[in-house]
Amino acid sequence: MKVIRITEPGGPEVLEEADRPEPMAGPGELKVRVRASALNRADLLQIRGHYPAPLDAPPDIPGLEYAGEVVAVGPRTHRFKVGDRVMGLVGGGAWSDVLVTHEREALPIPEGMDFTDAAALPEVYLTAYDALVLQGGLKPGETVLVHAVASGVGSAAALLCQASGARVVGTGRNAAKLARASEWGVAHTVLCESAPPRFADAVRAATGGRGADLCLDLVGGDYVPESMLALTSRGRMVLVGLVAGARTEVNLGLLLTRRLSVTGTVLRSRPLEEKMALTQSAERHLLPLFRSGALRPVVDAVLPKAELRQGLERMARNDLVGKLVVRWE
Amino acid sequence: MKVIRITEPGGPEVLEEADRPEPMAGPGELKVRVRASALNRADLLQIRGHYPAPLDAPPDIPGLEYAGEVVAVGPRTHRFKVGDRVMGLVGGGAWSDVLVTHEREALPIPEGMDFTDAAALPEVYLTAYDALVLQGGLKPGETVLVHAVASGVGSAAALLCQASGARVVGTGRNAAKLARASEWGVAHTVLCESAPPRFADAVRAATGGRGADLCLDLVGGDYVPESMLALTSRGRMVLVGLVAGARTEVNLGLLLTRRLSVTGTVLRSRPLEEKMALTQSAERHLLPLFRSGALRPVVDAVLPKAELRQGLERMARNDLVGKLVVRWE
Repeated sequence: MKVIRITEPGGPEVLEEADRPEPMAGPGELKVRVRASALNRADLLQIRGHYPAPLDAPPDIPGLEYAGEVVAVGPRTHRFKVGDRVMGLVGGGAWSDVLVTHEREALPIPEGMDFTDAAALPEVYLTAYDALVLQGGLKPGETVLVHAVASGVGSAAALLCQASGARVVGTGRNAAKLARASEWGVAHTVLCESAPPRFADAVRAATGGRGADLCLDLVGGDYVPESMLALTSRGRMVLVGLVAGARTEVNLGLLLTRRLSVTGTVLRSRPLEEKMALTQSAERHLLPLFRSGALRPVVDAVLPKAELRQGLERMARNDLVGKLVVRWE
Repeated sequence: MKVIRITEPGGPEVLEEADRPEPMAGPGELKVRVRASALNRADLLQIRGHYPAPLDAPPDIPGLEYAGEVVAVGPRTHRFKVGDRVMGLVGGGAWSDVLVTHEREALPIPEGMDFTDAAALPEVYLTAYDALVLQGGLKPGETVLVHAVASGVGSAAALLCQASGARVVGTGRNAAKLARASEWGVAHTVLCESAPPRFADAVRAATGGRGADLCLDLVGGDYVPESMLALTSRGRMVLVGLVAGARTEVNLGLLLTRRLSVTGTVLRSRPLEEKMALTQSAERHLLPLFRSGALRPVVDAVLPKAELRQGLERMARNDLVGKLVVRWE
């Protein structure tokens, strides 16, 4: 089988196509013929040598999500059969003609959804679902502050909030991208051009002075102290990204008096049982919302595999709205 | 009735005894003859003018906890009757011959416990129970890092951990006080003399390299980033005090990769329904541990009311182990 592999740490130019033996499906596992994958910032980090793959993933093949069809099943596998259309997250190795995954980490592709839409779904929606619902305790009627709301996870989070009866105030640094946020149900947007960013007053104004109940922060850095100012009493903040930096000064007095909680999270390094649990929970609570039409993948563009490197360069320039999908054929 | 009131912002010298009309018990309320109260750092802050009482408490009478007997009940009160011995937290006003509280905010004094022991119990044990169990999700087998473990809340937290099957690593800044920590079941102590404090390596060493599961932080400031270093993956931190300061720089990368959560909390400003809920939960889960002997109040000294001011001065000097109780007669 053909894979895209990292030859040495660097930019997209260090990727090359290579031949590898096909993996075997072990007990409970599926062998999947990949039909589409998608690009993530974590791939860029891994290619640069800054984000090593977990131990159970190939160290030199990027790719965190896939959509494809089952071509073989291992012993004691019973949830899927050969020919089923599946999608899911993997710790790495999705940029490959074939991959192996445990059947409890795979999701059935909703009927009528094609492979390229399905490949745009796992990373952003499982991240948003886990952060907002499972960790953030999202409830109807709440106001959710979503940073980088025009990003892949941001747009998925906004749609999930809308589908859950919650209202979104979204921030972004690019006016043109932010202008599209109403397409995924964002009630108010705040353009953040200054450093440090200033959005707490706008969030308070948009909530009648009350502040947001929950914040999904994909940005980190100086967004964190300002987000604390934007939260109401007992507000929760879930931090899933650090594109604005990993160090910041926080006001612990505000944390105490407002009784805030701040939770950091990451999906990729989780142990198998937690990844299975998230997948199963998403099958139960997230997939029905795709079938009903309340949720949809937000796809910026679909590229042929030959243009994967150019896609990574576009992602590095930060001018996407939604996901870049790569057709695998 | 006699009360101790704040005449103007200042030190303990601004307190004076004054006459006030006795309050009436309203629907669901108890009128309590106070037999003992206790001193808290929050009283010192309030006397200095830095910590105003909540709206439903007298603005100028300190005192956050009491033990006494019911002398009258209001309409539609059914949990207690005249003559019952009760204890509890109030938003303020406990330094008074008589106070009124809702019956769902009052706890029965365990049989055989005298009023002065009972008055030492509510603030420290409800704080520790709420932070460790209700917010921190304390589970048996865990290792809990408790800062200021020789303080009132610290010693209560250590005893509660021990009674719950958890192991405590405790920090403190005073070697003599820390030496007494084994009395409340602390497995390891770390003396923190430097600024910023260094205890993460000692916590890792005491947990076979793993780190603590939960941290109860009564100190704040530079203890927060060091506590994050001392926590294991998915570790939780509950912040209930800021004696070391309200500002600190945190490493958000650590928060993310270790999937930590940090929650700030405070009891006094909570709305009535939350105070009732905490009291009722404590009656169910905490009081049985006093009846069994697993928990006990940690009392530094019992003072007559005439020495309340001197007691506050001692507390300000930070040389207590456990609570200072004031007999009210």
